[in-house]
Amino acid sequence: MHIITIGREFGSGGRELGKRLADALGYAYYDREILTAIAEKSNMDEGYVSKMMEQGLFSTIPITFGQTFHYTASVQQNATQILVAQQHILKELAEKGNCVIVGRSADVILADYAPLNIFVYANLEAKLRRCKNRAPAGEDFSEKEMKKKMKQVDSSRAKAREFLSDSKWGRKESYHLMINTSDIVIKEIIPSVADYARHWFEVNHTK
Amino acid sequence: MHIITIGREFGSGGRELGKRLADALGYAYYDREILTAIAEKSNMDEGYVSKMMEQGLFSTIPITFGQTFHYTASVQQNATQILVAQQHILKELAEKGNCVIVGRSADVILADYAPLNIFVYANLEAKLRRCKNRAPAGEDFSEKEMKKKMKQVDSSRAKAREFLSDSKWGRKESYHLMINTSDIVIKEIIPSVADYARHWFEVNHTK
Repeated sequence: MHIITIGREFGSGGRELGKRLADALGYAYYDREILTAIAEKSNMDEGYVSKMMEQGLFSTIPITFGQTFHYTASVQQNATQILVAQQHILKELAEKGNCVIVGRSADVILADYAPLNIFVYANLEAKLRRCKNRAPAGEDFSEKEMKKKMKQVDSSRAKAREFLSDSKWGRKESYHLMINTSDIVIKEIIPSVADYARHWFEVNHTK
Repeated sequence: MHIITIGREFGSGGRELGKRLADALGYAYYDREILTAIAEKSNMDEGYVSKMMEQGLFSTIPITFGQTFHYTASVQQNATQILVAQQHILKELAEKGNCVIVGRSADVILADYAPLNIFVYANLEAKLRRCKNRAPAGEDFSEKEMKKKMKQVDSSRAKAREFLSDSKWGRKESYHLMINTSDIVIKEIIPSVADYARHWFEVNHTK
């Protein structure tokens, strides 16, 4: 099974890179469906699970989600439940065949499958530009708000990963390849990254 | 001018990657000749310059080089002289045309040429293996000694770079692409890295 995991800084285009890479290699791509499956498995609302995972899985700040406050009482318990569901689902997906998984600490959770772990990052300017260009209709964050959100999301991702592993989120030691998207057109570099991945699996999975 | 700089951890195979990449792209490759030119320009012995740059440019430990101790009195002055010569020579080389330069803080010194900056690294085990396999005849370091040497050289590289720049040696923010050679055969990934470089220059140097 060839598994590619994509860790990424918020706003760096990791999701786009992952999706395009999966297409180029003919691998399955999992992103949103993981959330849906976690929500189902843990019997929670998908929006709540999403918000928990992005902002508060390891935060002590109570999460307000719509008008349903009944979750907040047992945030820790919910977080654990989500984590357990996440591990089950990632392993189920990995068993299905070659795939690209963005985020979700998949590099740690699926370590036994010897995945190719890629990290995608960019400088602040490029990330702000990207977020602005891709903001959903109606979202109108100031630059300051956007920076704050970035920091929160990345810090939550780091914490989630470091809860499961001694190795650090976003540090080169934890990855096989790190791609800075600040100065590139993601679409253009996909063929070479796909090629790199093919060689990597040839060397590492020929047993 | 397309300039590719290769930063690298000691023992990670950065030099091999740089040389092969230059061959694949038809670029010039500069490594040892930089040392020679620096030695000539600063009117010092090449072996001394090499030792200074690898071990002691920013160290306060006196360097013993063969029987010629007359250098040690003015290590600081020599270091400055070497640095100045280095800057001149790198710029001269850059003006000659497309090239790959390994080490020498070329990413910082040649920043005005908008180089593609690659960092090559590996885990300790892979680096020790590589050093053992490639040790020059007669060299017989113990693992402990080799680890110590690695640490020294990398720390000196970091210091030399950080003397010239605020950005950090070996940190992702300072590079466009970071390649972990622990699990790969360097030769095999050259075509994809060359391809990546071509796209990168297409996007960034089309002015």
